[in-house]
Amino acid sequence: MPLPGQLNPSPRVLMGPGPSDVHPRVLTAMATPLVGHLDPEFLVIMNETQEMLRDVFQTKNQLTFPVSGTGSAGMETCVVNLIERDDKMIVCVNGVFGQRMADVAQRAGADVTTIEKPWGQVFDLDSIRDALKKTKPKVLGIVHAETSTGARQPMEELGKLCHEFDTLLLVDAVTSLGGIPVEVDRWEIDAVYSGTQKCLSCPPGLAPVSFSPRAMEAINRRKTKVQSWYLDMTMVQRYWGDERFYHHTAPITMIYALREALRLVLEEGLQARFQRHERNHSALKAGLQALGIEYAAEEGYQLPQLNAVKIPGGVDDASVRKRLLAEFGIEIGGGLGDFKGKAWRIGLMGYSSRANNVLLFLSALEQCLLSAGLKISAGAAVAAANEVYSKN
Amino acid sequence: MPLPGQLNPSPRVLMGPGPSDVHPRVLTAMATPLVGHLDPEFLVIMNETQEMLRDVFQTKNQLTFPVSGTGSAGMETCVVNLIERDDKMIVCVNGVFGQRMADVAQRAGADVTTIEKPWGQVFDLDSIRDALKKTKPKVLGIVHAETSTGARQPMEELGKLCHEFDTLLLVDAVTSLGGIPVEVDRWEIDAVYSGTQKCLSCPPGLAPVSFSPRAMEAINRRKTKVQSWYLDMTMVQRYWGDERFYHHTAPITMIYALREALRLVLEEGLQARFQRHERNHSALKAGLQALGIEYAAEEGYQLPQLNAVKIPGGVDDASVRKRLLAEFGIEIGGGLGDFKGKAWRIGLMGYSSRANNVLLFLSALEQCLLSAGLKISAGAAVAAANEVYSKN
Repeated sequence: MPLPGQLNPSPRVLMGPGPSDVHPRVLTAMATPLVGHLDPEFLVIMNETQEMLRDVFQTKNQLTFPVSGTGSAGMETCVVNLIERDDKMIVCVNGVFGQRMADVAQRAGADVTTIEKPWGQVFDLDSIRDALKKTKPKVLGIVHAETSTGARQPMEELGKLCHEFDTLLLVDAVTSLGGIPVEVDRWEIDAVYSGTQKCLSCPPGLAPVSFSPRAMEAINRRKTKVQSWYLDMTMVQRYWGDERFYHHTAPITMIYALREALRLVLEEGLQARFQRHERNHSALKAGLQALGIEYAAEEGYQLPQLNAVKIPGGVDDASVRKRLLAEFGIEIGGGLGDFKGKAWRIGLMGYSSRANNVLLFLSALEQCLLSAGLKISAGAAVAAANEVYSKN
Repeated sequence: MPLPGQLNPSPRVLMGPGPSDVHPRVLTAMATPLVGHLDPEFLVIMNETQEMLRDVFQTKNQLTFPVSGTGSAGMETCVVNLIERDDKMIVCVNGVFGQRMADVAQRAGADVTTIEKPWGQVFDLDSIRDALKKTKPKVLGIVHAETSTGARQPMEELGKLCHEFDTLLLVDAVTSLGGIPVEVDRWEIDAVYSGTQKCLSCPPGLAPVSFSPRAMEAINRRKTKVQSWYLDMTMVQRYWGDERFYHHTAPITMIYALREALRLVLEEGLQARFQRHERNHSALKAGLQALGIEYAAEEGYQLPQLNAVKIPGGVDDASVRKRLLAEFGIEIGGGLGDFKGKAWRIGLMGYSSRANNVLLFLSALEQCLLSAGLKISAGAAVAAANEVYSKN
């Protein structure tokens, strides 16, 4: 076999459920030559990255750092450190990532109870209170931004409620961090994980996590070793903590990238960033509605960064997505699980959340839908989006 | 807190136990804008990467791909997929990474027997045969290139021996792949893992693995789920196999990097690459011997890519390493475990294995040792190295 040629992928506009487009400054940072993972200069880089991560998570938690794996490794890290065999855990399931958390917890030996809501809906405090009362679990796990449905779980009162029952609150913030508020301390979250390739607009490969002092106490009280050596916080914290004790070789370049991505987040400012995500979402939503397209998630609980919408009747899922990619370089996501073939997932995450992308996407989608024979009013989508932009 | 400034690490010559210096072409590849992890173009990139990995592993194994984590995640992947609770496993321990494998296996619920050799020595076939006879384990794990001691384990007959006892052979090739031969098929290895940051000269963050058909059968016969969701081969193979079924988001940029690193390996050719590692090792060794420095690993079993040597009497470990780093930008490794404070580990891996580095390092070390008051013959180290270079 002749060797493959030079790497030469086509330019893309990444508007799917992640990865999002990576900011040019982050790409440039990744071309930086390496220092060693125990180099004094790298230890400073680690500190800076942790400090910035704490700001973005809005926490003072000491143990806040990026796990050396993608978002799912972050999920597994939180679960396997908090859970010992036969510990009780409640997992709230209203989409693919809740299902995944239940699977991960079962593999960790947890005695898992799931509570469920239809896809696209969110959990209310009363149903969670009932489940806590009945089960009194060690851990309750819930997804803040369900990437499979575009639903946004209200989080404000949840930590307090869990702590009434001496339960640890574990939160999936993979798609929320950097796009909508994730207030770890104020919401009394005990363990949280995210991913770099969503609203942080860094390539996939790291999973930022944070553990509260309450979670750390639970981990330090364990009677058995964490089942994963690679993800064992009792050891990893010695590398990311003051000791700098070698555990595994940190993915240096990915940490260069995350550091630059976090600098971009904090230069913009969290509030400004959240407003930008909200504004572009409103414009996209107005445009989609002008095309007669409906959201999959409940009104009032829709994520600005992940717009899951119902595919209009008579329109072929795959051929529209294929055309968007081939003709415009635009990637959007198809449906997962229950929503396979029924939903599109349009991401406006991080650097991808820009008016340019909203206007381009609506124009391109209009072209695809007109070709598919849909009766829509030409130009209406862009007009509706521009009306939103002109107002705020 | 003011935001940290632009990323600006000092230039380094990475001659420790890894990471090694990354080739400029690999760094450039990492600045490439992303395509999605399910993009048809990315699926081609995945295929190309797998094909090249098979060539480098010298295998036809279908399930050959990079795990989304560092080398230790590769170790855990091999162990947790092959082992079910209470399965018997023998781990050969003659350094830190054998110890780690035993720890990982215990956490996976294996009934672990260790056999040991003093650090710096390797295992002979007879002692392994005795252990296999006695235990008849499902899996035997051994380290090919022990990064903590610089010892090179002979591998040629080991697979055959294991298969006489119906035992699967699991091999740690983290520091060997791309630097010395790793002949997965000819040596009848059933599961093997490596890391990208050693002789492949790619940043840390991926763990290439390969599983033989015999290993895949064992995995498919499992009665229980793999304890790690993230590392479960029965699911991951559906993404890296023909189905391309979404499992977790692949670390796209790291795969860009690995693809370019593998192109560099195969452009050079495996034999030429192994000879280059051997040649630079011989020159370094001659130079070190001229300074009166001895190797930690047994003669005849020394890794060319990782030169673990005894720190000369009267020389302070930390101050020499600190000076090498501060004055020359050269990183070498200190000792781990039993060798802490007693050994230096000098890597000549991948792109770092160059005559330039050998000559520079010997010159700089000579300066440090003279300053420390050691009675050595000035110029002798470089002269000895150059004599080796002039001969081959």
